[in-house]
Amino acid sequence: MLQDAETTKEPIAGKLTEDDVRRIVREEVERAFTRDPAARRASIIASKGTLDWAYPPLILATTAAAAGMDTSIFFTFYGLSIIHKDFAKKLKVDPVGTIHNVATIGELLDAARDIGVRLIACRMTMEVFGYREADFIDGVEFGGAAAFMSQARRSHVTMFI
Amino acid sequence: MLQDAETTKEPIAGKLTEDDVRRIVREEVERAFTRDPAARRASIIASKGTLDWAYPPLILATTAAAAGMDTSIFFTFYGLSIIHKDFAKKLKVDPVGTIHNVATIGELLDAARDIGVRLIACRMTMEVFGYREADFIDGVEFGGAAAFMSQARRSHVTMFI
Amino acid sequence: MLQDAETTKEPIAGKLTEDDVRRIVREEVERAFTRDPAARRASIIASKGTLDWAYPPLILATTAAAAGMDTSIFFTFYGLSIIHKDFAKKLKVDPVGTIHNVATIGELLDAARDIGVRLIACRMTMEVFGYREADFIDGVEFGGAAAFMSQARRSHVTMFI
Repeated sequence: MLQDAETTKEPIAGKLTEDDVRRIVREEVERAFTRDPAARRASIIASKGTLDWAYPPLILATTAAAAGMDTSIFFTFYGLSIIHKDFAKKLKVDPVGTIHNVATIGELLDAARDIGVRLIACRMTMEVFGYREADFIDGVEFGGAAAFMSQARRSHVTMFI
Repeated sequence: MLQDAETTKEPIAGKLTEDDVRRIVREEVERAFTRDPAARRASIIASKGTLDWAYPPLILATTAAAAGMDTSIFFTFYGLSIIHKDFAKKLKVDPVGTIHNVATIGELLDAARDIGVRLIACRMTMEVFGYREADFIDGVEFGGAAAFMSQARRSHVTMFI
Repeated sequence: MLQDAETTKEPIAGKLTEDDVRRIVREEVERAFTRDPAARRASIIASKGTLDWAYPPLILATTAAAAGMDTSIFFTFYGLSIIHKDFAKKLKVDPVGTIHNVATIGELLDAARDIGVRLIACRMTMEVFGYREADFIDGVEFGGAAAFMSQARRSHVTMFI
């Protein structure tokens, strides 16, 4: 005798019907979507270079990484300056962090690297602005928009900041 | 005799092969992706506090909710002011809405709440700016970036505005 | 005798158990997620109308399309001006493209159309600003936020620029 499609008991060996299989598949697929690999990835673009707008990508990226997500920040356009050594120097007197008693950008960059956030400098922007790899803080990777997109397309969280 | 793998007819009970099962699975998985739960969620960040930039998050969020999506707006950074009572007061003379004959921000906030958009005030920004819960309009929830991220990671539509 | 759940050999016809089926399903679902249709779509909003901020949506969209993704740019708010004929005229002397030796916006718009990026003008913004369809460059489509959202919800890459 065939299984009741509502039960999850083991059917009699060799007696699985297409209906049994469809029920099993739906259960497994529902479970699989709760583990969708795209839910474990965040791909964030940092495009702005002012002190205040340096905060959101770093805060959101460290938040995502703290939740166990594989997280990258692609620093491009004006945002490339956030990981430039000169920007880091200026941040020693970060007025936003000091006044508002929050972490400075320098501290957030450290926290991001410590928790495994990948910091990627946009090669095209580097060429446009005439930057060299040595101009950037330690731990920065270098890549293009195509490499970023190949990760972003596998990520639920994709944000242009 | 086994089923032709191309047909969807019910196979003879107890005669399903691995090929039959793989065919059924592919059909079911293809259907499942059209109902991907992440396609039913939108997680939007409102980060800007000027009158004009208050429009896009509210318009996109109400559009998503009208399409049946579970939609949240996380008001953070300068965007927190959009749901501050003082901002709502100023909006009684919303020049953008008045001049261009579109809904005012106050009307869009009402529409968003009516259609079930969750309006979430960022607790960290509240602390930085010294805001209290009573400073915000009715219906606002309060949460952190981590809570936002736990929803965003399960959403296809994620936007930083 | 039943198959070892670890092997992928064809089981004896008619002897598949629920465990066999669950193993097959997990294999197929894992494969399916690597081909998640949402990973093949990018839905980008261009909301800013200055020359410099016209670059990021066009660069990211052409990058996505070059990777084989179905890509759309929804030009709304101030971003609508990027595809206005007058903007294209001004771009003949695009100082960003000229000074930095990168493609001009006009060239990027051509590249985007050539590679199949859909350029969609926001109808609501058109009405607010009093634009007509004839005001826009060739190849532009016209649509609303709801149409954009119906595509964005099926896209992993969703960005508001």
